[in-house]
Amino acid sequence: MASQTEIDAMRRAIDAARTAGRTLPNPPVGCVLLAPDGTEIAVGHHRGAGTDHAEVDALKQAGDRARGATAVVTLEPCDHTGRTGPCTRALLEAGVARVVHGSSDPAEGAGGAKALIDAGVDVESGVLAEETDELIRFWAFRHVNGRPFVTWKYAATLDGLSAAPDGTSQWITSQTARRDVQQFRAECDAIMAGTNSVLTDDPRLTVRDDDDRPLPYDRQPLRVVVGESKIPQYYRVLDRVAPTRLIQSRDPHEVLGVLNDEGIHHVWLEGGPRLAGAFWGAGLIDRVIGYLAPAMLGSGRAALEGEATTLADIRPIDITDLTMVGPDIRIIGTPGRAPREDMD
Amino acid sequence: MASQTEIDAMRRAIDAARTAGRTLPNPPVGCVLLAPDGTEIAVGHHRGAGTDHAEVDALKQAGDRARGATAVVTLEPCDHTGRTGPCTRALLEAGVARVVHGSSDPAEGAGGAKALIDAGVDVESGVLAEETDELIRFWAFRHVNGRPFVTWKYAATLDGLSAAPDGTSQWITSQTARRDVQQFRAECDAIMAGTNSVLTDDPRLTVRDDDDRPLPYDRQPLRVVVGESKIPQYYRVLDRVAPTRLIQSRDPHEVLGVLNDEGIHHVWLEGGPRLAGAFWGAGLIDRVIGYLAPAMLGSGRAALEGEATTLADIRPIDITDLTMVGPDIRIIGTPGRAPREDMD
Repeated sequence: MASQTEIDAMRRAIDAARTAGRTLPNPPVGCVLLAPDGTEIAVGHHRGAGTDHAEVDALKQAGDRARGATAVVTLEPCDHTGRTGPCTRALLEAGVARVVHGSSDPAEGAGGAKALIDAGVDVESGVLAEETDELIRFWAFRHVNGRPFVTWKYAATLDGLSAAPDGTSQWITSQTARRDVQQFRAECDAIMAGTNSVLTDDPRLTVRDDDDRPLPYDRQPLRVVVGESKIPQYYRVLDRVAPTRLIQSRDPHEVLGVLNDEGIHHVWLEGGPRLAGAFWGAGLIDRVIGYLAPAMLGSGRAALEGEATTLADIRPIDITDLTMVGPDIRIIGTPGRAPREDMD
Repeated sequence: MASQTEIDAMRRAIDAARTAGRTLPNPPVGCVLLAPDGTEIAVGHHRGAGTDHAEVDALKQAGDRARGATAVVTLEPCDHTGRTGPCTRALLEAGVARVVHGSSDPAEGAGGAKALIDAGVDVESGVLAEETDELIRFWAFRHVNGRPFVTWKYAATLDGLSAAPDGTSQWITSQTARRDVQQFRAECDAIMAGTNSVLTDDPRLTVRDDDDRPLPYDRQPLRVVVGESKIPQYYRVLDRVAPTRLIQSRDPHEVLGVLNDEGIHHVWLEGGPRLAGAFWGAGLIDRVIGYLAPAMLGSGRAALEGEATTLADIRPIDITDLTMVGPDIRIIGTPGRAPREDMD
């Protein structure tokens, strides 16, 4: 059993992990070292590929004081030699007596809990695991599925239209909803759109604050533009506000393969309807966030262009959240399985 | 000030009005007579055109006991001689000393409060008026606007589609949602659909209980089928379960004119998309009830077919209720004003 002091320390470790920002391709991890009497010796966190893991960051601060200490860490310490050497060895060499961790390493047998136990360290697993799992949700998804997690965001009227027949589409939803979108965007590693939608709307695809000012370059997600059409240099998606990657393919599997190779955990997919339809049809959308403007348009361009031909092709969505965001309706859901081949 | 005894009596008067069912073209009204000591003498309600008004119904039961009594009535007593003579005269002749009423008569100067006061009766107005107004909501609307209130109900996927490309549309939403629809239908005086949608889906357009059994004929709303196409006799909308009216027009003003002449207060408009689009375009939809199935279809027939050509044509809706009904999302809203002719 973890003590209340250790549980409190885990909350501080989670906070430390959250301050790290993007740590691609690694997950955010935080670590708090506690002296035998429960006082805090050091707080560490991981800062991204090639830098110290959270445990090592904390151990370096602690020095000799780590001997006999308890390490409280959001993720099971690694046991493999990457660019930084295994954390299990660092913990053992520092003389840590007890390790309390949250999430387990999703790669079976890859985690260090067993190695630590075998070496005589007292190990407690799964502490505040619901919160620590949320921290590594997208990293773990990519690890298990071999591709980034895809969130598809759309905005439409109540009759499902994202643009008027003349192509006008900015803005269907309210400023409140657009700010809400910015918060979600900031949690992603890449913001993706198709070339057609870029050529039509000239979107920025950046994360901006409430005053519409972009965050610093190093805090921007990667902008990803997919498709064959050429984007002239003066389009905003090619400005210097954020990095941009052009992928000359509309095959969802191929696109996600490229992004996976770049270490992206979480892709934010925005327009257009054909790109969304291709991902939807391929079963490669893991979460839907829809903003429905309280209005009817009557005719225009759909939010999704797909290939259903009969009601049996319908794709269910499990609604996990339904709320008003300003005057608009926000729906968050998880797509269900593809329809059965034959219906009884 | 109304006493607590009178307020309690008003609640019983409201209940009495509700038991009446449809009273077209009159509103539902209930009346409770109280003796000077507050005991209940009689409860009356109106039963429809040509029958006694609620006050007279109660007075006839009370006979001589009405002398010196208080009449608690949901709607301001009428002062005009229709098929039944004014209620004000009946109340005065019976010797009623005090009248407590809820809603005021929406027709200015038509109500009897002033006539009663002039005759020396003590009158208290607006008691539980929020509830009594709800009772006569659609009747008052028709009275003020000269046409029935129109509720448009649609069911669609999250991408606004009501049918697959092959026309299949039954059922997009869940059984729970369909039962919810039945409850709303039961509150309407007419259920309207276009000939195309009748020919495609062969709907019953009836009110049914949870076991899918239709209510008795005399409790069914009028079925209204509008459009030029001929409906063969074997279609279900022409069966003997409920009355049916065919209107050979798709002009919304003309259709509502016919229904207004029939004394209809509240029309429930269901499909198809072109009929809904015509009413929408004419600004003749007063309430929208949308059931959104948690699914995407990708291609198919829209819930609404209208004529917007640019975003400036968008019609705002004020969302008054948002809830889950089983797995589906139910949205209730009030359409806003038509877009401005020119936008700054």
